[in-house]
Amino acid sequence: MIGSTSNKQVKRVVNLRAKAKARREENCYVAEGLRMCRELSPDQVEMLYVTEEFGSVPGNRRWLAGFPHETVSDVVMNYMADTKTPQGVLAVVKQRHYRLEELLPQAGKQALKTSAPSGKNPPAPACLMILETLQDPGNLGTILRAGEGAGITGLVMNRDTADIYNPKVIRSTMGSILRVPFVYVDDLSAALAQIKSAGVRLFAAHLKGTNNYDQEDYTGNIGFLIGNEAAGLTEEAAAMADCYIKIPMAGQVESLNAAVASSVLMFEAARQRRNSSQR
Amino acid sequence: MIGSTSNKQVKRVVNLRAKAKARREENCYVAEGLRMCRELSPDQVEMLYVTEEFGSVPGNRRWLAGFPHETVSDVVMNYMADTKTPQGVLAVVKQRHYRLEELLPQAGKQALKTSAPSGKNPPAPACLMILETLQDPGNLGTILRAGEGAGITGLVMNRDTADIYNPKVIRSTMGSILRVPFVYVDDLSAALAQIKSAGVRLFAAHLKGTNNYDQEDYTGNIGFLIGNEAAGLTEEAAAMADCYIKIPMAGQVESLNAAVASSVLMFEAARQRRNSSQR
Repeated sequence: MIGSTSNKQVKRVVNLRAKAKARREENCYVAEGLRMCRELSPDQVEMLYVTEEFGSVPGNRRWLAGFPHETVSDVVMNYMADTKTPQGVLAVVKQRHYRLEELLPQAGKQALKTSAPSGKNPPAPACLMILETLQDPGNLGTILRAGEGAGITGLVMNRDTADIYNPKVIRSTMGSILRVPFVYVDDLSAALAQIKSAGVRLFAAHLKGTNNYDQEDYTGNIGFLIGNEAAGLTEEAAAMADCYIKIPMAGQVESLNAAVASSVLMFEAARQRRNSSQR
Repeated sequence: MIGSTSNKQVKRVVNLRAKAKARREENCYVAEGLRMCRELSPDQVEMLYVTEEFGSVPGNRRWLAGFPHETVSDVVMNYMADTKTPQGVLAVVKQRHYRLEELLPQAGKQALKTSAPSGKNPPAPACLMILETLQDPGNLGTILRAGEGAGITGLVMNRDTADIYNPKVIRSTMGSILRVPFVYVDDLSAALAQIKSAGVRLFAAHLKGTNNYDQEDYTGNIGFLIGNEAAGLTEEAAAMADCYIKIPMAGQVESLNAAVASSVLMFEAARQRRNSSQR
């Protein structure tokens, strides 16, 4: 059992938890809590850390047997964990890297969709959330969680967007990080060009928007471009959009919280897709 | 000029900022920042506190002349303010109390709506957000701000909901707190009965919901019931609903963040109202 906070492994976990740079260099992140950890498969986990109490529960013990794990004292768990009342289990998880291509509709998939030659369900049209320099980890986590609920097919972010492996994001996604494909791109403009050439129509929530968001058709392959909380989209990114949309506002509200605006758009897309499939 | 953090007024502001009980007893709250303070009218303000630098700007000086105000040192402003980089102005604001009746559609208003005897616009149908034990100040502020944008006509909360005068809420509402009528009720069940008897149809976002939220009609007088972040609505409150609705979810998401769920519902109501008025 690890009982000292100066243990090498403990120091490493704290470092991974606190520093984006360490997460990047080691290609790992820290996940906390039973619910999140229960969703991990053995090949994703580098090491599980559990308290004695956690490990003594028969159900937990059986589950743990499939994973590399170490027992730590309560003091050490409290020291390693980001939450005030840790649940006795914490994982160092390997990062999973998607390529942008994996998030895009493919020619083959599209053909399948239109001709439907086999009994298989065609893949759903793409619904991408594309974030430019979104700063707040809480917003990012909320968008990922709401996005999974709304059925988005992927998340594209520029490098200046908050770190998705930040413990605050991980917590607020409630496991969606394990299920929604995402990718950080070095050059957003180049990525947008690639996305468009794959047949995805780009909608930008923008002050210049003249069309109400609910007057557009989101049943095909689409992407929503969302900008920074304070500054919005850069001109460069906005210029790549096929269509500017606005969420009309009552009262004296000038803009919505980024996670709220994203959710309104994503669930409108989900609503349209549901209704069009019922026709 | 007030230069000491042990000054009586300074201590009072800090107390008002930090303690819900003090706000309740003194019937005041603290608002920070130029944008928020600029929206206040002299009859709402008990005292403005400004830094010397703020007061030396000609535009600010003219505006200040209409208000009771005190100059404080930068150190004192930093001590009083909740934000890390205060903008040099902070207000002690009188609380405004609405009665539930003021938030309800009135018989007279309704008659006006149907018969439209004068050239005046009829009042919009009620759209109330009703929150039961919503705990997170950030969620409350986000709902109020998004709600103003979606055109809600009022906010009803039980006493166990977060304090709307919490500085975190005030900040995240971006001034909506001055524009959207709200009321705390002691007995939520009694309030719901009163709301219903005024002709408001109550929709509860609920796990028992079988109807998708977008299949219901929100163009009349309506209210949305939103429960606690973790526990949802109590059975008592849920039993008062006319209709249970659900936001259908893709993936493995079980529930949405309360502010996201509220926003999806409020903007669906706004969408329907916009479309029905265009017909």
